[in-house]
Amino acid sequence: MIQVGINGYGTIGKRVADAVVQQPDMEVVGVAKTRPNFEAQSAIEKGFDLYAAREDRKHLFGEAGIDIAGDVEDLVEQSDIVVDACPSGIGEANAEMYAEYDTPALLQGGEDKDAVDASFNARSNYDTVEGEDLVRVVSCNTTGLSRLIAPLAEEYGIEKVRATLVRRGGDPAQSGRGPINDILPNPVSLPSHHGPDVNTIFPELSIDTLGLKVPATLMHMHSVNVTLESEPGADEVRELLDAQDRTFVIPDWLGLDGAGAIKELAQDAGRPRADIWENCIWGESVSMEGSDLYLFQAIHQESDVVPENVDAIRAVLGEADQAESIQRTNEAMGLADGLAPTRVAPEATADD
Amino acid sequence: MIQVGINGYGTIGKRVADAVVQQPDMEVVGVAKTRPNFEAQSAIEKGFDLYAAREDRKHLFGEAGIDIAGDVEDLVEQSDIVVDACPSGIGEANAEMYAEYDTPALLQGGEDKDAVDASFNARSNYDTVEGEDLVRVVSCNTTGLSRLIAPLAEEYGIEKVRATLVRRGGDPAQSGRGPINDILPNPVSLPSHHGPDVNTIFPELSIDTLGLKVPATLMHMHSVNVTLESEPGADEVRELLDAQDRTFVIPDWLGLDGAGAIKELAQDAGRPRADIWENCIWGESVSMEGSDLYLFQAIHQESDVVPENVDAIRAVLGEADQAESIQRTNEAMGLADGLAPTRVAPEATADD
Repeated sequence: MIQVGINGYGTIGKRVADAVVQQPDMEVVGVAKTRPNFEAQSAIEKGFDLYAAREDRKHLFGEAGIDIAGDVEDLVEQSDIVVDACPSGIGEANAEMYAEYDTPALLQGGEDKDAVDASFNARSNYDTVEGEDLVRVVSCNTTGLSRLIAPLAEEYGIEKVRATLVRRGGDPAQSGRGPINDILPNPVSLPSHHGPDVNTIFPELSIDTLGLKVPATLMHMHSVNVTLESEPGADEVRELLDAQDRTFVIPDWLGLDGAGAIKELAQDAGRPRADIWENCIWGESVSMEGSDLYLFQAIHQESDVVPENVDAIRAVLGEADQAESIQRTNEAMGLADGLAPTRVAPEATADD
Repeated sequence: MIQVGINGYGTIGKRVADAVVQQPDMEVVGVAKTRPNFEAQSAIEKGFDLYAAREDRKHLFGEAGIDIAGDVEDLVEQSDIVVDACPSGIGEANAEMYAEYDTPALLQGGEDKDAVDASFNARSNYDTVEGEDLVRVVSCNTTGLSRLIAPLAEEYGIEKVRATLVRRGGDPAQSGRGPINDILPNPVSLPSHHGPDVNTIFPELSIDTLGLKVPATLMHMHSVNVTLESEPGADEVRELLDAQDRTFVIPDWLGLDGAGAIKELAQDAGRPRADIWENCIWGESVSMEGSDLYLFQAIHQESDVVPENVDAIRAVLGEADQAESIQRTNEAMGLADGLAPTRVAPEATADD
């Protein structure tokens, strides 16, 4: 059993901890937190050992009546690998500690790409990270773009990717973020950092990205153009994308018009935290104009990297090959069951 | 003096009426409305004669104690030209009435392009509409794209335009519209109608557009990619765009991060209704990657077509040439004064 430590138990950390618990080949050693907030209480209820992430705040746990199992260093020492899900920048600062205990670590996409040995996306470069000490699981947006780019590049070749990322302003619980009633070019100067970030996974790819922020919290939305090196039909592209392990090509008949409806579907499907681990690609939007592919995809910023973190654990430790790991992760998490209900009515025909 | 009738006195109609009043060569004959709401009262206060747009609702004006000058047919008969600013679809239905009185009419961008003799953008095809009976002033988004495309096509040649339109969900007063906290592909199927609409102005142009709706009311935002036929520097493109009559290339030092800040600037500048008649292009965003130009521009959906309507009046009646009309319109409206305050501090240098 792979012993996994979780350092940072917020949006990503708590989800990865739950996903690791579900894996047949992994165990959670414990989770490290800085403060005894509701998430710390929840970790204890779930039976996770709690470690103090910061010496100077350790006393807060005692004052809150919460027993801790030790300091974060103890957690790192006992773990075969640590998933660092601390806020951006902290992961990089923690790298020295992981090196000290000779424990490999996964950082998250907010960290600097130059601070790590390798960047990771399960679909795109699983085989390249085995044995690395410090591996970055790329951000939600880069994960979403990589999952889309990999099959298109393999099947058709890509001349150029141009994508506008209409980004949610903050996560639902981030009450202090904006914008409110506005549409912000963000960043204003182009290209946005997302394109170069995708290049950490596809170094040779020509990609330009633009970013915007809007008053929404549920998911990001990508408006994607891929100029292909060939001219497949839209149906063929749709089938290719639908056949991927972590994509959900939304069929017309579901009537999903946006992120709100997708979240509602995820709730009804009983997904934990209504998480949507897949790229949600509108089938109707998949269009070809000559060699230009266009489509819209929604990306759940809080959860699409969770199965990627699980796979990265096996990839770094060399515990399973790509296909085996993705399948194991997807089945254990319930991702393999899909989001959409089975259609009761017969498929629509051309005569409808 | 050109006698202008305004049929429909809502978001666009009331603005066009005010702009026409300011023109040295035009007079407002009167305005037609369906209902005696606050805008009708306001029209009377401004001294406009009010006409009843619908026979079956005429009695409402009497009941509200408002004197009317006649029916819309009387207005049409007395006018040299009518600006029809009725809700989408009504303009087309009114076409028969305009023909009956042999009065040329301008419809708005929401009308079907096949319902009119020609579509109009002052910068792009002023000279093509003289003598036409029914001319459509294209929509706010198409106006914004056309103003951008015309100089680029003339100066560099355009291979292809790809644009994602992040559209405001509704105008500030449209309280019943959405989305709320969502990002909707809209339309889901691609390309959106905007590209074909731009083709009413530039028939040969290769353009693909994608549309989204977000919870914002202030302005639309365009994420634009233009593949040029040459490779000018970004500075050169920025200067070209800045030299246009109805563009505002936002300088870095103003610190405008989105539509809210632009509206604030327009208020401070004393613009009527805080209207922004220009394309607002972020200077920082104007970037070249090989022959690919990228930029963000904000488009004020309530007002960018107003000066276009004024020019269309002269263009249809053959009362002035393009340069003369645009200059006259801009000066009379105050558009020529620009939006930005004069910079007090010296221009930043490369050493700053």
